[in-house]
Amino acid sequence: MTGRDGGADIGPIGNSPVVILVRPQMGENIGATARAMGNGGLFHLRLVAPRDGWPQERAWRTASGADRILEEATVFETVADAVADLHHVFATCPRPRHIVKTVLTARGAGTELRAICGRGLRVGLLFGPERAGLDNEDMARADALIRYPLNPDFMSLNLAQAVLIMAYEWWMATETSEPRFLMTNEAQVATKGELDNFMQHLTHDLDESGFLRNEQKRPGMVRNLRHLFERGEITEQELRTLHGVVTELSRVRKSRAKG
Amino acid sequence: MTGRDGGADIGPIGNSPVVILVRPQMGENIGATARAMGNGGLFHLRLVAPRDGWPQERAWRTASGADRILEEATVFETVADAVADLHHVFATCPRPRHIVKTVLTARGAGTELRAICGRGLRVGLLFGPERAGLDNEDMARADALIRYPLNPDFMSLNLAQAVLIMAYEWWMATETSEPRFLMTNEAQVATKGELDNFMQHLTHDLDESGFLRNEQKRPGMVRNLRHLFERGEITEQELRTLHGVVTELSRVRKSRAKG
Repeated sequence: MTGRDGGADIGPIGNSPVVILVRPQMGENIGATARAMGNGGLFHLRLVAPRDGWPQERAWRTASGADRILEEATVFETVADAVADLHHVFATCPRPRHIVKTVLTARGAGTELRAICGRGLRVGLLFGPERAGLDNEDMARADALIRYPLNPDFMSLNLAQAVLIMAYEWWMATETSEPRFLMTNEAQVATKGELDNFMQHLTHDLDESGFLRNEQKRPGMVRNLRHLFERGEITEQELRTLHGVVTELSRVRKSRAKG
Repeated sequence: MTGRDGGADIGPIGNSPVVILVRPQMGENIGATARAMGNGGLFHLRLVAPRDGWPQERAWRTASGADRILEEATVFETVADAVADLHHVFATCPRPRHIVKTVLTARGAGTELRAICGRGLRVGLLFGPERAGLDNEDMARADALIRYPLNPDFMSLNLAQAVLIMAYEWWMATETSEPRFLMTNEAQVATKGELDNFMQHLTHDLDESGFLRNEQKRPGMVRNLRHLFERGEITEQELRTLHGVVTELSRVRKSRAKG
């Protein structure tokens, strides 16, 4: 079988939730699921009665290098067998009816999955077959259902997309990066003193050119310029560029005045 | 052109962010993007220099009914043209280098997009071409970059998946559903009094059968049973079933004792 020569290093495998595809139909979707799992750090895949058997060449073609997940996938005949060694089972189901069951949002599930795995318990996530979804017997084996809050007028996730959102929320449940920051790469953020140096350079040259000659309006104009440059972090490199721009424009003005 | 006969009703279109695909290559991916957008309530699609022209039959085949988004998509020659009427532009970019720019997580961007749109301003989301991603000129037109916090050892999102996560976070930014609740459908949650009635029924029958004959252990055993049944909300219907189970088991025991 080609294309099964290792794939990407997908990172360390800890006690993470098991993704259980129940009666999946298309090998392509199993591969795309593995790819989605790798993105969010889910590495354990189980297949219950895959329609076309296992392994399937086509799965490796859509896995984008998440080969290890496919290599280590295990196959079961029934959902009962697939969940027998697990302590918790959550089932994804968009519109369950006539059921009494705990419902978690995908985000709520991400938090609970982290808590459960943190206690050393094993947890599985059931995903139903394409189109049909999980049947009532499958759902009766779950502790809770997972719901994706999405546009009720157009909810259309394929199997791998449903897995992706859950994998994303699993990853985000421990994500600590700031929701907003200035990426400076090698550059240093300028201090207020460095910014003030530039403002003095700018106002000096604008005074010289006569742009600020209206004494009454001058303080407001300078203040407006300051507000503009204070609006966000500026780097030292950007300030050097701004100094250069002001110097250059002044030079051109002066040489023209001379000419 | 077939398959362009309406599609699904995808819900009301408000002031929502514009998804801008820059130099997209595959028609299938444009369709899959429209499908991902519909899920999260993003309806405005712009295409900058699509490789194979526009419209493309194949896009409709992968849109899963998000036809209206494709029908109303507009085409531009350059990124500059595509963003000219917008007030804010965010660009998705996994690993930007040598750039000084504000970076938002997808979640942080969801919150900011809601705030910007709530002020009546128009905002665009730039997504680069498959594989290559946005180039440096494209990114220079953006206010901020959007970063997806995902497994750094295996980050492999296709175009539609990247759009899906952003659309999901846009939708989630106003989502108010509880992260966990008991879905009871038509059923009513039982009151503590109704649960107590059942506990009395159960202990009465267990007393009668002799199961609780050890007077010293009796209080602890009853308490353990109570802890079990108090662990989560029980519905009135479930309590009726439990009453029936206890009554039936007692009946069998009694009739056996007689026989």
